[in-house]
Amino acid sequence: MSKKSNILILGGDGYLGWPTAMHFSSRGHNVTVVDNYSRRKNFKECGVDFLTPTLDLNERAKIWYESTGKEIKVFIGDLSEINVTKSLFDGTVKYDWAINKNFSGIPNCVIHFAEQPSAPYSMLNLEKSDFTIINNLRVTNNLMWCVKDFSPTTHIIKLGTMGEYGTPNIDIEEGWIDIYHKGKNDRFLFPRQASSIYHTSKIMDTDLLWFGVRTWGLTITDLMQGPVYGIETDESLKDQRLMTSFSYDEIFGTVLNRFIVQSICNYPLTIYGSGNQKRGYLNLIDTLKCIYAAFENPPTQGKLDIYNQITEVLSVKEIALLVQQIGNERGHKVKIQSVDNPRVEKEDHYYNPKYSGLQELGFKPTFLSSEILNKLFAICEKYSTNINEDIIFKGVKW
Amino acid sequence: MSKKSNILILGGDGYLGWPTAMHFSSRGHNVTVVDNYSRRKNFKECGVDFLTPTLDLNERAKIWYESTGKEIKVFIGDLSEINVTKSLFDGTVKYDWAINKNFSGIPNCVIHFAEQPSAPYSMLNLEKSDFTIINNLRVTNNLMWCVKDFSPTTHIIKLGTMGEYGTPNIDIEEGWIDIYHKGKNDRFLFPRQASSIYHTSKIMDTDLLWFGVRTWGLTITDLMQGPVYGIETDESLKDQRLMTSFSYDEIFGTVLNRFIVQSICNYPLTIYGSGNQKRGYLNLIDTLKCIYAAFENPPTQGKLDIYNQITEVLSVKEIALLVQQIGNERGHKVKIQSVDNPRVEKEDHYYNPKYSGLQELGFKPTFLSSEILNKLFAICEKYSTNINEDIIFKGVKW
Repeated sequence: MSKKSNILILGGDGYLGWPTAMHFSSRGHNVTVVDNYSRRKNFKECGVDFLTPTLDLNERAKIWYESTGKEIKVFIGDLSEINVTKSLFDGTVKYDWAINKNFSGIPNCVIHFAEQPSAPYSMLNLEKSDFTIINNLRVTNNLMWCVKDFSPTTHIIKLGTMGEYGTPNIDIEEGWIDIYHKGKNDRFLFPRQASSIYHTSKIMDTDLLWFGVRTWGLTITDLMQGPVYGIETDESLKDQRLMTSFSYDEIFGTVLNRFIVQSICNYPLTIYGSGNQKRGYLNLIDTLKCIYAAFENPPTQGKLDIYNQITEVLSVKEIALLVQQIGNERGHKVKIQSVDNPRVEKEDHYYNPKYSGLQELGFKPTFLSSEILNKLFAICEKYSTNINEDIIFKGVKW
Repeated sequence: MSKKSNILILGGDGYLGWPTAMHFSSRGHNVTVVDNYSRRKNFKECGVDFLTPTLDLNERAKIWYESTGKEIKVFIGDLSEINVTKSLFDGTVKYDWAINKNFSGIPNCVIHFAEQPSAPYSMLNLEKSDFTIINNLRVTNNLMWCVKDFSPTTHIIKLGTMGEYGTPNIDIEEGWIDIYHKGKNDRFLFPRQASSIYHTSKIMDTDLLWFGVRTWGLTITDLMQGPVYGIETDESLKDQRLMTSFSYDEIFGTVLNRFIVQSICNYPLTIYGSGNQKRGYLNLIDTLKCIYAAFENPPTQGKLDIYNQITEVLSVKEIALLVQQIGNERGHKVKIQSVDNPRVEKEDHYYNPKYSGLQELGFKPTFLSSEILNKLFAICEKYSTNINEDIIFKGVKW
């Protein structure tokens, strides 16, 4: 699978989708990205925006081609519609941007990011909960059946989330657990209990894909990813217009990215409750490396490989203190403010996830450091005139 | 809760929904049934039909009123549409049949059957898999949010299925399992891994409702039911036009009901593979008793009560032999035929589910007996001219 492959990236306009597309393209693969810009629509609904200018996919693919001579085909379509997903397997797809408009062929590997990715968005009201569950499951179900019907050996890499596990009082294994119960034993999916509708929709994805694997022998890797931070990747350095989107609002921004922007605009870093909530985090450049490692090491047919895709465990308070330190060194006056927890979650809890699987495949992690924080601050400072303080706090409660 | 309550039954046209409605109505509760007749539409698509005449809900509610003086309000609407579900909580509902057309009030208890209930149907193709997942989850999500937003103490009784558990190699507990792992322990949902898309949609329902319970403190009972057999109930004896629907085709019929009709029309009882597949079964009249016991014993707020709703464990081969014996005694010439298993399932497996919880609430089971089989044969024989042999075998494979 490390030869030139047809790679289909679902959700190619997203924070992770676009950098993944460039990463695979730069390694010589034939990449197609698909998106319906639903996140941009959801942004408008919520009155939020990106920090950095984020061109549409046609424009970015064109710039990528001009800088590298490599083509990323673009198809704008809603993958929750059956015929849209089918078109990517039966060859009836009409690309919105491509140098060569002919069908790129049945994908050898599909990387599936095409989901509504925000926990707070999913909790706003019934309509947004409905959109999250239905969009996310429809895309996964359409993909699973199309692979089964058209191309059963295609490798699916699905982005799951560490949030599926919640914060259990036992060690979190990589996806599976052996249970010994009343004298007998069996192996099961590790128990999942998430803390938002979005995260619950990802549990449902897992239920669905595990069905596809054991019933139809599909080849699937499920990556249980923690919150990602960062913006630049090796590929985006070629032209800053290739940088991925960057959110800093409470609904779509991940915590570390948000805290950096809040530091710059003198908005206190808001810690929910005790701030002892621990999660596993990773750098955007590590997301790309992990996905590539998963691509190069597909599971044997009929086996669902699950990896916990994080590089280190930090509490929210620890992140705030790190950001505060670097922010103050850079001349910002960073305040940390504890607020009543607007969410239903455990604040003080056991958290011991395993995450050695991807490293056993050769992935080398990049840990959070002063250097990385300084680089991230520098980019955000460059775009500081774009910061709109009003969108940081949205008061989403559940 | 054993006083006169407002009972809302979602899926009131179904095999279980209608008898449940009469059962609660006869006990003095204000019952409203809702359905969109989607199963009847799915029947037409698949070219199958009921054994017995099955009047629409308006007609049956009228007959029920004429025989008992009790009103069951009828609302025909698609609960997967948000506004349809909301109308049952905000009082804007317009009943299709009622003696008193005024809003019956916010429900004290909602009994949720409104799902596409056939495993083979869900496996026919992508479109039907999509319908199953989306319909089932949308109704559950709409219900959960409406209860949270309008009436957070309303008790939801949801019909789950024993099929969610699959056939694990450990004892199946009632919904929950305590896991001791590497020196620490916690309690989780019992692992679930189903053998069809339909059953997987029910796992997703469980994921969703458990989220609603632990996040919003909802009051929910989840009944993990086995395949049901039977047709008459105490209430339907008042007028045979009140009998529930009865399916005998491979797509919508449950195994014991199907085998009786097959015996009558001299169609071999088809056993998939070894026939050693064990499942827990129960009589339709026991379904009603179990639901009533669950209604009378709601969980404390914020606790999800789960019961395994079966009365005995039987293998397919044992059921075939029982039906054959009674069928032959009644003058039929019943053949049993083993066919290659068209499904992906374990044929020889450990199966030891617990099911004492409902009996601890006072439920007294009715076991399968010659008498019960003879009664069921007698009704089916009465309608034998309606049997259409062509719809029995549909060749659904997965």
